[in-house]
Amino acid sequence: MVSDKIILDHGSGGRSSQELIEKLFLPRFGNSLLNELNDSAVFELGGAKLAFTTDSFVVDPIFFPGGDIGSLAICGTVNDLSMRGARPSYLSVGFIIEEGFLIKELEQILFSMEKVAFEADIQIVTGDTKVVPKGAADKIFINTSGIGLVPANIDIAGQNARPGDAVLISGTIADHGITILSAREGLFLDSPLKSDASPLNHLVQKMLNTGSEIHVFRDPTRGGLATTLNEIAIQSQVAIDIYEEAIPINESVLAASEILGLDPLYMANEGKLIAIVPQSQAEAVLAAMRETPYGRQAALIGQVKEQNPGKVVMHTTIGGKRIIDMLTGEQLPRIC
Amino acid sequence: MVSDKIILDHGSGGRSSQELIEKLFLPRFGNSLLNELNDSAVFELGGAKLAFTTDSFVVDPIFFPGGDIGSLAICGTVNDLSMRGARPSYLSVGFIIEEGFLIKELEQILFSMEKVAFEADIQIVTGDTKVVPKGAADKIFINTSGIGLVPANIDIAGQNARPGDAVLISGTIADHGITILSAREGLFLDSPLKSDASPLNHLVQKMLNTGSEIHVFRDPTRGGLATTLNEIAIQSQVAIDIYEEAIPINESVLAASEILGLDPLYMANEGKLIAIVPQSQAEAVLAAMRETPYGRQAALIGQVKEQNPGKVVMHTTIGGKRIIDMLTGEQLPRIC
Repeated sequence: MVSDKIILDHGSGGRSSQELIEKLFLPRFGNSLLNELNDSAVFELGGAKLAFTTDSFVVDPIFFPGGDIGSLAICGTVNDLSMRGARPSYLSVGFIIEEGFLIKELEQILFSMEKVAFEADIQIVTGDTKVVPKGAADKIFINTSGIGLVPANIDIAGQNARPGDAVLISGTIADHGITILSAREGLFLDSPLKSDASPLNHLVQKMLNTGSEIHVFRDPTRGGLATTLNEIAIQSQVAIDIYEEAIPINESVLAASEILGLDPLYMANEGKLIAIVPQSQAEAVLAAMRETPYGRQAALIGQVKEQNPGKVVMHTTIGGKRIIDMLTGEQLPRIC
Repeated sequence: MVSDKIILDHGSGGRSSQELIEKLFLPRFGNSLLNELNDSAVFELGGAKLAFTTDSFVVDPIFFPGGDIGSLAICGTVNDLSMRGARPSYLSVGFIIEEGFLIKELEQILFSMEKVAFEADIQIVTGDTKVVPKGAADKIFINTSGIGLVPANIDIAGQNARPGDAVLISGTIADHGITILSAREGLFLDSPLKSDASPLNHLVQKMLNTGSEIHVFRDPTRGGLATTLNEIAIQSQVAIDIYEEAIPINESVLAASEILGLDPLYMANEGKLIAIVPQSQAEAVLAAMRETPYGRQAALIGQVKEQNPGKVVMHTTIGGKRIIDMLTGEQLPRIC
């Protein structure tokens, strides 16, 4: 820890976040479940195999094209449960609200949460509301935690990528990150930019229903595709090769990224998943994905390799190769 | 909703909080589990009977005599699980930290969390950290959610008080609330005021081990003893009589309350529980409580009655009777 203070980087989801977790949190709280650093912890309790996860949402602005802090908060936790192969069942919601926040804005947020909860078929069963004096928080923060049931035969985790596996993505990258930044700065107001925030549990279910042996699911949120692939490469002690031309990206997102000088590989997604599956089963899984609304643009974007474990290598459109590192530095605070 | 804005009252745990829940949250999210409005939701998942709860902590100051925001965050969730008779097992932790927060203060908070987690014998298995720019949050907020296993034969809930039952409290009231207020204002610095923040799961286990038929557990946090008893009276559709002279209170707390003009009945507790049990089993339960560190000053403070359902009546020390209402208005923001 170079700094003696918390900096924005510590919340980026990139290298500094990892350092904070490794140097401060794990030494205190470390246990076999937490140490795995997966999207959810999976454990047995009372004979049931459960997934459990938590996320706090501090996105700015709270309303943006394609969603708001409420829909994001439900999607985020539904997705973190889904990434372990769990069926999300029950969510908790904790609000921290700044004094003076408009009730009608809260109502709008609750309405969004209800809509996504209905779509994802989950129930909000417990909650908490704190109000802090004006200036002690910026508008509203929402924590959601969730529980889901993991089928006994499912073992999906960041540790399970194997050399030879195919790397799939469920659709275009960087939509959420670029949309939030643009909305915050009031840029590209006439463009079709839109957050991809979506609940992925039904997509996951379709993929599991193919009977394919899925090794890894991961949603590339903070830190983007690049950081998430690096995490998997480290957890599984494998290398991951990806092909730039195969990565789906919306034109408007690409154009905005170029103007802003930002790399879409590091921009957050809130309705996408990475799946790592045996090469032989990739086509069947892709076909199932493409039949669902959130998987229409699913693509095979890379392969798991044995050499250079822990590294992610991109084969560029112009025929070169470059190592893709984790996000270092904060690309964008309050992205989710 | 009289106001069109969120006011501090909405986070008080008193009448305005109830209104917010009833008028905004339940119409959107309402389901049989949420509607019960208990400290935890209890449901079956994969054959296991589970309790699930969440709380966000925004206490100011973050360090205070008897604890800090970290110990409070663990105790609060351990206790909410325990209040349904669950054995707390796994907790999640979500941090929202203001840019510039001192790492050494974070370390101190983590140390407190570790200590209480060890004492309560729970594991922190999943977490999340967000950092917001300076000024977007006040120092640090912590959400904890938790899961516990509820034995199949246990049914403890706010709905279960029965006329004739005895009302027990595990110790002195108002310690947390008065301590926080005094620490915030820099008052009574030489007094023995100390928060009672404690994990109550072992106390609860001792009480359950007596084999007594416990109807209700509730921890009187925000809104204090008075508000919590009102909630139980409404949920169970009974009246509750309490005896002022039987309610344990530390002298320093009483003195500080009088100087500050605050009613200890409405001040938060973070290491106390109310238990409602059949009169015939009250002595056995009290005896078990008094054998534990957090139950030494346990007392029988009242009785459940049939007439005037929904009302709490206090028999005062000077021989009078008065109706004790829920907290109306915010006695103290950011108490937990």
